[in-house]
Amino acid sequence: MSLRVYLSGEIHTDWRERIVAGAEGLDIAFSGPVTDHAASDDCGVAILGAEPDRFWHDRKGAQVNAIRTRDAIAKADVVVVRFGEKYRQWNAAFDAGYASALGKPVIVLSMPDHQHALKEVHAAALAVAEEPEQVVQILRYVLTGTLPG
Amino acid sequence: MSLRVYLSGEIHTDWRERIVAGAEGLDIAFSGPVTDHAASDDCGVAILGAEPDRFWHDRKGAQVNAIRTRDAIAKADVVVVRFGEKYRQWNAAFDAGYASALGKPVIVLSMPDHQHALKEVHAAALAVAEEPEQVVQILRYVLTGTLPG
Amino acid sequence: MSLRVYLSGEIHTDWRERIVAGAEGLDIAFSGPVTDHAASDDCGVAILGAEPDRFWHDRKGAQVNAIRTRDAIAKADVVVVRFGEKYRQWNAAFDAGYASALGKPVIVLSMPDHQHALKEVHAAALAVAEEPEQVVQILRYVLTGTLPG
Amino acid sequence: MSLRVYLSGEIHTDWRERIVAGAEGLDIAFSGPVTDHAASDDCGVAILGAEPDRFWHDRKGAQVNAIRTRDAIAKADVVVVRFGEKYRQWNAAFDAGYASALGKPVIVLSMPDHQHALKEVHAAALAVAEEPEQVVQILRYVLTGTLPG
Amino acid sequence: MSLRVYLSGEIHTDWRERIVAGAEGLDIAFSGPVTDHAASDDCGVAILGAEPDRFWHDRKGAQVNAIRTRDAIAKADVVVVRFGEKYRQWNAAFDAGYASALGKPVIVLSMPDHQHALKEVHAAALAVAEEPEQVVQILRYVLTGTLPG
Amino acid sequence: MSLRVYLSGEIHTDWRERIVAGAEGLDIAFSGPVTDHAASDDCGVAILGAEPDRFWHDRKGAQVNAIRTRDAIAKADVVVVRFGEKYRQWNAAFDAGYASALGKPVIVLSMPDHQHALKEVHAAALAVAEEPEQVVQILRYVLTGTLPG
Amino acid sequence: MSLRVYLSGEIHTDWRERIVAGAEGLDIAFSGPVTDHAASDDCGVAILGAEPDRFWHDRKGAQVNAIRTRDAIAKADVVVVRFGEKYRQWNAAFDAGYASALGKPVIVLSMPDHQHALKEVHAAALAVAEEPEQVVQILRYVLTGTLPG
Amino acid sequence: MSLRVYLSGEIHTDWRERIVAGAEGLDIAFSGPVTDHAASDDCGVAILGAEPDRFWHDRKGAQVNAIRTRDAIAKADVVVVRFGEKYRQWNAAFDAGYASALGKPVIVLSMPDHQHALKEVHAAALAVAEEPEQVVQILRYVLTGTLPG
Repeated sequence: MSLRVYLSGEIHTDWRERIVAGAEGLDIAFSGPVTDHAASDDCGVAILGAEPDRFWHDRKGAQVNAIRTRDAIAKADVVVVRFGEKYRQWNAAFDAGYASALGKPVIVLSMPDHQHALKEVHAAALAVAEEPEQVVQILRYVLTGTLPG
Repeated sequence: MSLRVYLSGEIHTDWRERIVAGAEGLDIAFSGPVTDHAASDDCGVAILGAEPDRFWHDRKGAQVNAIRTRDAIAKADVVVVRFGEKYRQWNAAFDAGYASALGKPVIVLSMPDHQHALKEVHAAALAVAEEPEQVVQILRYVLTGTLPG
Repeated sequence: MSLRVYLSGEIHTDWRERIVAGAEGLDIAFSGPVTDHAASDDCGVAILGAEPDRFWHDRKGAQVNAIRTRDAIAKADVVVVRFGEKYRQWNAAFDAGYASALGKPVIVLSMPDHQHALKEVHAAALAVAEEPEQVVQILRYVLTGTLPG
Repeated sequence: MSLRVYLSGEIHTDWRERIVAGAEGLDIAFSGPVTDHAASDDCGVAILGAEPDRFWHDRKGAQVNAIRTRDAIAKADVVVVRFGEKYRQWNAAFDAGYASALGKPVIVLSMPDHQHALKEVHAAALAVAEEPEQVVQILRYVLTGTLPG
Repeated sequence: MSLRVYLSGEIHTDWRERIVAGAEGLDIAFSGPVTDHAASDDCGVAILGAEPDRFWHDRKGAQVNAIRTRDAIAKADVVVVRFGEKYRQWNAAFDAGYASALGKPVIVLSMPDHQHALKEVHAAALAVAEEPEQVVQILRYVLTGTLPG
Repeated sequence: MSLRVYLSGEIHTDWRERIVAGAEGLDIAFSGPVTDHAASDDCGVAILGAEPDRFWHDRKGAQVNAIRTRDAIAKADVVVVRFGEKYRQWNAAFDAGYASALGKPVIVLSMPDHQHALKEVHAAALAVAEEPEQVVQILRYVLTGTLPG
Repeated sequence: MSLRVYLSGEIHTDWRERIVAGAEGLDIAFSGPVTDHAASDDCGVAILGAEPDRFWHDRKGAQVNAIRTRDAIAKADVVVVRFGEKYRQWNAAFDAGYASALGKPVIVLSMPDHQHALKEVHAAALAVAEEPEQVVQILRYVLTGTLPG
Repeated sequence: MSLRVYLSGEIHTDWRERIVAGAEGLDIAFSGPVTDHAASDDCGVAILGAEPDRFWHDRKGAQVNAIRTRDAIAKADVVVVRFGEKYRQWNAAFDAGYASALGKPVIVLSMPDHQHALKEVHAAALAVAEEPEQVVQILRYVLTGTLPG
């Protein structure tokens, strides 16, 4: 058994690295968005030409990023969506809805403080974790049937 | 030609009323979530029994609400998603992603201040409006071919 | 807003009647399997000819019933699955899995004693109720936003 | 030709081992649920935190298990569902319905005593066997065209 | 409950009339191919211009007929396929396969003499009848739960 | 039997009017794009604000038009695509491909001069006509089985 | 580029061998039904127990064969359907309809004498050939762009 | 991460070679139509027999080519559609519509002069480029997150 896992959401902490490191030895192929913030913001105009209007600057970039993210979510067996401490993170919630409508199992990684605000997103998830290590434990259990401890 | 339009998102201002009133005379059946905030929060426990833990209180409610919202989005021809001034509004972004994965045309109603934070959501929309009246104009044009003015 | 609701499962108590009566006045079209036990068991051989072997007697009947139930589940917006006190009720669990794979919102109506045995079925449901009246309250809330009391 | 075969249902006898052993040499990748009963029951709370209420204890676990089982059923070419002598086995019937709605060929492995109670499940199956060795013979025939004896 | 029933196959006997007459009073909308043999053969060239080569004469006609039949099968809830005494009737078997892949419940109306030759088609059907009146009885049972006699 | 027919393509001649007039008395609901050329070009900026760059001016408009056309094509039973004498008409070919991938029966209305250039589009069509009256004859035949003359 | 090609239909001549031999060197994985006539007829009863009634003898076998054929057709990129000189060959026409509804490209291999009787099947095919060698030429062209001679 | 990229459209310049060369070292499997113009035009009649009527000559060829192109588009993760300087290129627009309806990310490679005529096609694309090198930069960014320069 092997899994393709898409890691969506927050790009400012090391949660992806902690999951990937923790999952060493498991047969998992991880994917995710481009996490270089500047590259992600500017990819559209850097390749396809500058835009004076920020709206189109953003749209060009978001569309180029969508080529990557839609493909990776479509190919994923499991989608993990991380909500961090800061920022609005509407793209994370968008990905959760997108994956959910495709019937992908969703694992949410969020903080207790956000529980009420995330209740619709949580209700669409098969697991709600608070720490990346819990996500690793879920993935290990799913693949091997082994529980921690 | 007739349309079923789902109005997702913010429940604290009169944007739904403005759209419904503006669209009078057009062949549109509007739907949306339950907008009574207290009822929406408590529907799960009010019907299925109290929960001491807020997490399950919320989940029970969100799941009951999902019976309504998933059905209505699945039946909609067009989904309008409103992002207001306040709150985190992750459920609105979730609905946008959900509708988008189902291939529904999405119209976003948002504020210029949120442009950058909403760029992935905007990039999945066929129109981004700032005022409910623009949404009415789009719906009128879609149904009748008539432009304002 | 209107709903088509399929009532699956137990045929020995009056739960269907209680739901239909309780939902009077709501815009709901109910459907369900044939609940005349003898007719349901014998429909295959009564129409298509007797079978000496019980296995094929049963199969002929189950296939004729499937013409009705598959069509009705496919057309339903919501599927309610009732597990009663007696019998093995594998057909109810089958319907729950079938509806679930089609992405239909599932409401389970079951008894506390069966909680552990039904945990996989419950986990696929958006609501788990113990009384038919709770199902009515959910349907009323979904259609009108009104809570009991 | 190769096959991915999901083995659903009873976890108290050695039917899986008998099928896997019998199928040695055939190009089949078998999958199935976690069959360690205790781990399967407790995986949710062991990873995501204890629940005082058994309902949520069960739900947490069933949802984590669903990450594995939905993925494996979705990837399977053939689903074998085993109904054993004991317990209610609603999860087995649920899986049969789920696989059936996805259009997967279903093979049921059941006992003559259960024939009538399983008639709807049998009617959705392409084969109904009584012994694991018959399942092996079917798989061998499907892959190689060779019949026993 | 209402049904849309597509009547596919043989056009040389009155089986369609017998089913439609027998089903009087039931909420069924029947559809079927054009049963005027000459019109069905010549519709392509009559409208779109003569073809010297019979292959293209036939193809033009078959494609125009497909506009009708694909639409009607796609909209049908149940597909009845009739195999008569004469001719090769490959279009009937084609329709059975087409309907089957779309997940439509299929009822076959055939003669005992053809049993072995039709075994793959029969195996995809939920009922195999020999007389149009049996098809009527099935449709009545599906809609009303009433058995004959 | 009734049909929803989408009329795609050229907006500079009276082919739509001729089809609608010719089909009088048939149970057909016609739909199509907005055929007011100026409105169609400017709908985006007229409602959502001017764009100095023609590329975004066009995109805004094309996206608003897509709300109408995608909905109408998705709801159509048959799609007629007209290629006229002038202009590049890439949107007509795009609609033909779009409808084709959705499995909609496509009728092409084109001129003999364009035969070779349209060969891939023609090959995806169930009928290729040269005159609107032929399209009417096809629709009449599909609905009533009646041939001209 | 590689292709999975399913070879459906007649099992009494060497057409499959001629195609497989002719396609040597091309990156094609061929599949097909079990072509041992006796095994194919008896597989159901040989494994699952004898049936006194020929109808159920046939059904048991046809259902076991369907495990193989449905899987193989679902995985195929191209489906070739052969109609030979003898027998009714309804299973071939069934497969053509089944593959067609799944959107698979279909190549028919048939005889000029059957042209009129096969017109609906031909109309659903992307190519109609008379000799196995033409099928090989099509497959070679599809994979390599090379034409014969 | 790897990608399958289909290169649709113009066959008279070296744009495909420039993309393939530029993408050296990236994990991309490119596919496309047969680009030998004569072979592409004549493949149908060369294999399946001459046609006196150009319409059927073209159709035979276009259908054989469709075996290749439909398969390759269906398997592609990204579809690039090139509109060149000359010819009507309706097949390119058809492919863009076809890919779009399948939900494939589309990149259009076109010239500024064609902007207005291509506005509906552009509006369905996630990126609109003018040079093959920009397409390479997009593919490199999608796979590696690296921007040019």
